[in-house]
Amino acid sequence: MKLYDMELSGNCYKVRLYCSLLGLEYESVPVDLLKGEHKRGDFLRLNPRGQVPVLDDSGNIIWDSMAILVYLARQYGDEQWLPTRAEPLAQVMSWLAMSENELLFGLARARAVKKFNRPWDLSQCQALGKAGLQVMENPLQAKPWLTGDCPTIADIACFPYVALAPEGGVPLDDFPFVRQWMTRIQSLPGFVGMPGFQ
Amino acid sequence: MKLYDMELSGNCYKVRLYCSLLGLEYESVPVDLLKGEHKRGDFLRLNPRGQVPVLDDSGNIIWDSMAILVYLARQYGDEQWLPTRAEPLAQVMSWLAMSENELLFGLARARAVKKFNRPWDLSQCQALGKAGLQVMENPLQAKPWLTGDCPTIADIACFPYVALAPEGGVPLDDFPFVRQWMTRIQSLPGFVGMPGFQ
Repeated sequence: MKLYDMELSGNCYKVRLYCSLLGLEYESVPVDLLKGEHKRGDFLRLNPRGQVPVLDDSGNIIWDSMAILVYLARQYGDEQWLPTRAEPLAQVMSWLAMSENELLFGLARARAVKKFNRPWDLSQCQALGKAGLQVMENPLQAKPWLTGDCPTIADIACFPYVALAPEGGVPLDDFPFVRQWMTRIQSLPGFVGMPGFQ
Repeated sequence: MKLYDMELSGNCYKVRLYCSLLGLEYESVPVDLLKGEHKRGDFLRLNPRGQVPVLDDSGNIIWDSMAILVYLARQYGDEQWLPTRAEPLAQVMSWLAMSENELLFGLARARAVKKFNRPWDLSQCQALGKAGLQVMENPLQAKPWLTGDCPTIADIACFPYVALAPEGGVPLDDFPFVRQWMTRIQSLPGFVGMPGFQ
């Protein structure tokens, strides 16, 4: 299994973290975004979107972190990580949507503005990210994980850009239940960190 | 089945379209966003995110259009719309991610700037949306549907904001394969339109 990877990408880290939790081995293939390697022909043939992460599992090419998490859960995980039945499956999907919306276009973009000088509106991104964190506080006040009593790929998908939120100027002091949930994730057997938190 | 709905929302339309294709009946409950009904307590108890659509299927409350499509496909659809096996399931997820990223934060936001005076950067949104359309051209040049030979919920999720792109100042002239794919969707038995296209 090959993971086209970048160390500082929270989206790539979602995949590295989940592989580690599942005990899956893979070869990391670094893609140098600063050198534009993600926009070159050979990489665009893997992922026409020109983004990391991309997973190559014996020729099954999967792009987008959310799709890769779903693939790994169904191929190598069990029902706990991604339920089969419609209703609990949809609950996981709601939080995957949160990870691709408020967290990615809010928290991750705010971080990218501050850390990589990207041209987005910082206060708009921070406000969107905070709205997402506020929504996360609700279920985590009542339950240990986003969808209930055990972790799913929803927790894995939401964790990285929440943990990196302070790098985007969004402190987590006002979100005590989110911080407790982060500690639970960091206590999972096989947990690994990334630059920005451990 | 109740759908908390707004007529002009492309995200709500995804659900209306898919219900119609599956032949599912539902009660539409209009939520007046201009009057702020989505930010009131009773609605926030259904969806703490304060957004439409929300589905209530005999007490199963599902929020987010992507999660609702997954729920309906698994509960009422068949393997064609949402495969069970890891690899084809992940291919659908890649395009659901596209629908929540380039299409929602690109095309849909551009439309919201022009149509509803939202405060986002129009040219940034248009550029992101066009990048998404360009990525869609590739597979649709070779295959009739985004993931292959039959429509899936990926096609349903991507269709609305592509069809509404001209309202955001993104014409579709440069994307001939996308336009052919739109015609195929509009020819599906049970297809319904929405204001902006039929």
